[in-house]
Amino acid sequence: MKKPYLTLVGAGPGDPELFTLKGVKALSTADVVLYDALVNKDLLDYAPAKSQKVFVGKRAGKHSLKQEEINELIVEYAFNYGHVVRLKGGDPFVFGRGHEEIAYAAAFGIDSSVVPGISSSIAVPELQKIPVTARGYSESFWVVTGTTKDGEISKDIHLAAQSTATVVVLMGLGKLAEIIKPFAEFRGADTPIAVIHAGTTKNEKTAIGTLDNIEAMVNDKQITTPALILIGEVVNVHPAMVERIIEREFRNA
Amino acid sequence: MKKPYLTLVGAGPGDPELFTLKGVKALSTADVVLYDALVNKDLLDYAPAKSQKVFVGKRAGKHSLKQEEINELIVEYAFNYGHVVRLKGGDPFVFGRGHEEIAYAAAFGIDSSVVPGISSSIAVPELQKIPVTARGYSESFWVVTGTTKDGEISKDIHLAAQSTATVVVLMGLGKLAEIIKPFAEFRGADTPIAVIHAGTTKNEKTAIGTLDNIEAMVNDKQITTPALILIGEVVNVHPAMVERIIEREFRNA
Repeated sequence: MKKPYLTLVGAGPGDPELFTLKGVKALSTADVVLYDALVNKDLLDYAPAKSQKVFVGKRAGKHSLKQEEINELIVEYAFNYGHVVRLKGGDPFVFGRGHEEIAYAAAFGIDSSVVPGISSSIAVPELQKIPVTARGYSESFWVVTGTTKDGEISKDIHLAAQSTATVVVLMGLGKLAEIIKPFAEFRGADTPIAVIHAGTTKNEKTAIGTLDNIEAMVNDKQITTPALILIGEVVNVHPAMVERIIEREFRNA
Repeated sequence: MKKPYLTLVGAGPGDPELFTLKGVKALSTADVVLYDALVNKDLLDYAPAKSQKVFVGKRAGKHSLKQEEINELIVEYAFNYGHVVRLKGGDPFVFGRGHEEIAYAAAFGIDSSVVPGISSSIAVPELQKIPVTARGYSESFWVVTGTTKDGEISKDIHLAAQSTATVVVLMGLGKLAEIIKPFAEFRGADTPIAVIHAGTTKNEKTAIGTLDNIEAMVNDKQITTPALILIGEVVNVHPAMVERIIEREFRNA
């Protein structure tokens, strides 16, 4: 009988090469892999052929397993088969409820370890050459969820709007109008913003504009979830913005 | 003559297995690798034996190359040898001045791409099982540098203190007393805090306490730079804190 064990592994933002060597190693000894909707399925090939691969995806608006059911599955599979790799999109500790999974397993005496993943919050803008921090633009970045437990936007968004931080909102597309409001108030309607759908994958779509025109752009480009919202002066270093600024300041002068 | 090209690659927080497959691939075609002090030297083995490996480390208090000199080296090596991999600790766009390097290269007509790395800001606490976000504890996390251009602590730290965000301060150990102050004011002296030196490496050292005792702990444990400071309720889920809370609430009751 194999010892029950849990490894929480971050699958990264979508590109299967944005995955760690440590993640490959963990998968290679998996008896069971429990994976999410946003995980690239190519990664499952690193697990032994005889291992079980179980989809436990949660996705807004579609029927899926509840967190409590996933917790129970982890424990059940670990006791029945041994090493469970819980493969989660991005990084397992960034809005991933990963800690609840290891805490639940621990309550049954199951040991665990965590393998960090490349977080979309940093990497998705980065691959479009927008840095979350840049000298002269931003001394900090703030990552916040658009969807809190009680369904409201986080109060932290109002404080974030008053700061000079680059603000990254995950899972916030459905509340875009509400999220924009405090930023327009404190930073001005011409504050740059980017909305990126399915970053790092072949389905990537981007709208880059300012607070006053981004909603129209998102509609025009039919940008849907999953999407990341990035607000701050750093958006101005994106090649498309640089081009637009040159156009406005020089060519039309 | 090879085409000059720059790839900015994130080396991750120290553990050589916390490196991406895409990073391995980029190094395998490097003609020159320019690497920083905090990069694990084992990673250099992924570069061809005949490639040049050049240390360009910057480290507080020690003589090192200036950013401008590194920018110039990138351009010089790219024109002379072809593919330059710029290997930077953590993620190249998190306080890494990575964007300045691609912008400088672009000014000389050198194309570039970026390979994200595992950022210490998330992974270092994570490997101690402290999540930067956790339901019921924190809806957001804010990553800020302790060392700004003008040598002062960032004004964003005062706003961060008023929020409920988990706050991660990189390069802030030298200003620990000053950083703590606004948090003690807005969140109370018993707010949990962790200071982690050389996270994910064999030299890792951690002090976990509250705002009112952390300075003494850091002194006792002789914790030095590089160190990450983490402030927020999520620190309470660290095994050492859980043990201490049980001790206080139940055993001494």
